[in-house]
Amino acid sequence: MNETFAKRRREVTRELKRRQLDCLLVTHPANWYYLTGFTGDSGILVITPGGSTLITDGRFTTQAKQESPSVQLELQKGGLYVSLADWLAQKGIRRAGYDPEQWTLAQWKTLRKASGAKCRAIEARGVVESLRMKKDAQELAAMRKAAILAGEVLQGAVKLLRPGVTEIEIAAEIEFQMKKRGASGPAFETIVAFGARGALPHARPTAKRLRKNELVVLDLGVILGHYCSDITRSVYVGRATRRIRQWYRAVQDANQAAIAAVGSGVSCGEVDAAARNVLNKNGLERHFVHSTGHGLGLEVHEAPRVARGQSIRLEAGNVITIEPGVYIEGVGGIRIEDDVAVGFRGSEVLTRVTRDLIEL
Amino acid sequence: MNETFAKRRREVTRELKRRQLDCLLVTHPANWYYLTGFTGDSGILVITPGGSTLITDGRFTTQAKQESPSVQLELQKGGLYVSLADWLAQKGIRRAGYDPEQWTLAQWKTLRKASGAKCRAIEARGVVESLRMKKDAQELAAMRKAAILAGEVLQGAVKLLRPGVTEIEIAAEIEFQMKKRGASGPAFETIVAFGARGALPHARPTAKRLRKNELVVLDLGVILGHYCSDITRSVYVGRATRRIRQWYRAVQDANQAAIAAVGSGVSCGEVDAAARNVLNKNGLERHFVHSTGHGLGLEVHEAPRVARGQSIRLEAGNVITIEPGVYIEGVGGIRIEDDVAVGFRGSEVLTRVTRDLIEL
Repeated sequence: MNETFAKRRREVTRELKRRQLDCLLVTHPANWYYLTGFTGDSGILVITPGGSTLITDGRFTTQAKQESPSVQLELQKGGLYVSLADWLAQKGIRRAGYDPEQWTLAQWKTLRKASGAKCRAIEARGVVESLRMKKDAQELAAMRKAAILAGEVLQGAVKLLRPGVTEIEIAAEIEFQMKKRGASGPAFETIVAFGARGALPHARPTAKRLRKNELVVLDLGVILGHYCSDITRSVYVGRATRRIRQWYRAVQDANQAAIAAVGSGVSCGEVDAAARNVLNKNGLERHFVHSTGHGLGLEVHEAPRVARGQSIRLEAGNVITIEPGVYIEGVGGIRIEDDVAVGFRGSEVLTRVTRDLIEL
Repeated sequence: MNETFAKRRREVTRELKRRQLDCLLVTHPANWYYLTGFTGDSGILVITPGGSTLITDGRFTTQAKQESPSVQLELQKGGLYVSLADWLAQKGIRRAGYDPEQWTLAQWKTLRKASGAKCRAIEARGVVESLRMKKDAQELAAMRKAAILAGEVLQGAVKLLRPGVTEIEIAAEIEFQMKKRGASGPAFETIVAFGARGALPHARPTAKRLRKNELVVLDLGVILGHYCSDITRSVYVGRATRRIRQWYRAVQDANQAAIAAVGSGVSCGEVDAAARNVLNKNGLERHFVHSTGHGLGLEVHEAPRVARGQSIRLEAGNVITIEPGVYIEGVGGIRIEDDVAVGFRGSEVLTRVTRDLIEL
């Protein structure tokens, strides 16, 4: 992996040259992991053409030495941003690139105050995120495994759905099984929503007990080998009514249409529209209250956004979710979500669970 | 709870008057939960003397109506910060308070661009955090339960420690038991570190197997009824050597000395010094690589910091952790952490697990 990390850092330094920057200030943990392998959660990574330096505190120095042997380690003295200012001054850095999405105003003000006028900060958005969007073969292999594991855990959870169990019990079992099977943890807080609670797209599990004739939404993902997966299935406990079947079919068709639309050169807005059009035709537009999907990788939400009007074009190596849904107040929710890798031709669906309506 | 939330909002509006602000912009989820009960994770809460408004998107509207019935709901149109700018203009807000720790530069720039010169943003740091520091009786009751549950789960995990188990297995079982017993989840990623891995204060669980004659660090916390706990114990698998016993005793004494120092009117720096002095006397200063503790409540890390030189004084209702530790490269770590509520006189230790060395 050390060669992979070094290669990624070289890509950043090429970008620095293009932008005439002396360094990039990396403050986001997923980005510094991507560039160095460091998994600590406090510090700043500075990439310069001459090498990379990680400024961090005593809690993380031993770990940093083990995880990132080819990165210079600088022990933070006092505040992190003051230490950074000292380091920048010492190295004579004049133009430092930063991403305004990843700095709080307070951090920014501290750095400005400590570094004075000598060093200019230049906005450089999404430098590492752009690289991260395009997964290499090793990353895709990790993401396949993460997607398959999420699917297996989901199928295991479906077997536990019987009247009387609580949302919390199912969520606890899901996250336990993830870890038992090697995940370092859930990629996000597992959603288990019974009946009308499913109408909240981001419902947290409660002590609510499952009853006959309810919809169930299960939305879960694992972190396995640092990479995330994200899958949703909706099942019905009992025999679904005609209305529920119609809704389900519409969501299933929307999911299918969006997956069919995915391909290198296609814009994210077109993929979103493919799902949205199906739901519109079924008169469900106002019940589809979110976007069709999002990028997936080291983080569960990353670039690109698969949303209305997004003009960014997919390219081979991107991994996105496709997750249309409908939410009916007082009744419940239906969402079907898959993880899809963009290929040079067409796409590869990484999640491997049937999308047909399951009635228990 | 609705009356409690309303009372807290009234305290904010009193603070607004003192600072001559027309509103406070609340962007941090723990803060908007504290003020309204809303548990969604996207939006902005605006507190004005005339009432409170939550701007959020379609994923959270149903939830917001249920959780925060006394708050006005404003559906976000387009970007969140553009919607906010529109709302501020519409209401004629001229002086808006914001916390620079809780705004990214990018959010800030979007708001400035959208709102133009009509509305001035005034720095107002930690308004809600100051209120949150002082827990009321209801909050303390919740925190007692969270601390006791964490202790029970920890004691259960100690029973599973036998040569051959992996860190991941123990961590999975710990987080499963939390949820089984009613926690909504872990307050942070559970730390299970065997042997030399314990020298990394923030080690993530790995597939490493436990061997005889190793130290084990268990650091875990639950979220129960929205409130966090945080406890650490270090045990020895086998009969501890004299050197290990000496280190353990020093950490135990440091924990005890810091707890004894806690009280209303005492500065956080004094509490830190109480622990640090014990470790210094034992020649372990350079192995204590972090602060003595931190505030605890809705979040696992909140104000105040119990660190070197912190002059802020404790007052009744504060809850802090006391967690001195030593980290010896190549050997392992020893940390003993408790949660302590500051009383009008002395303090109350919320965690209820023996601090004596356990040898398995």
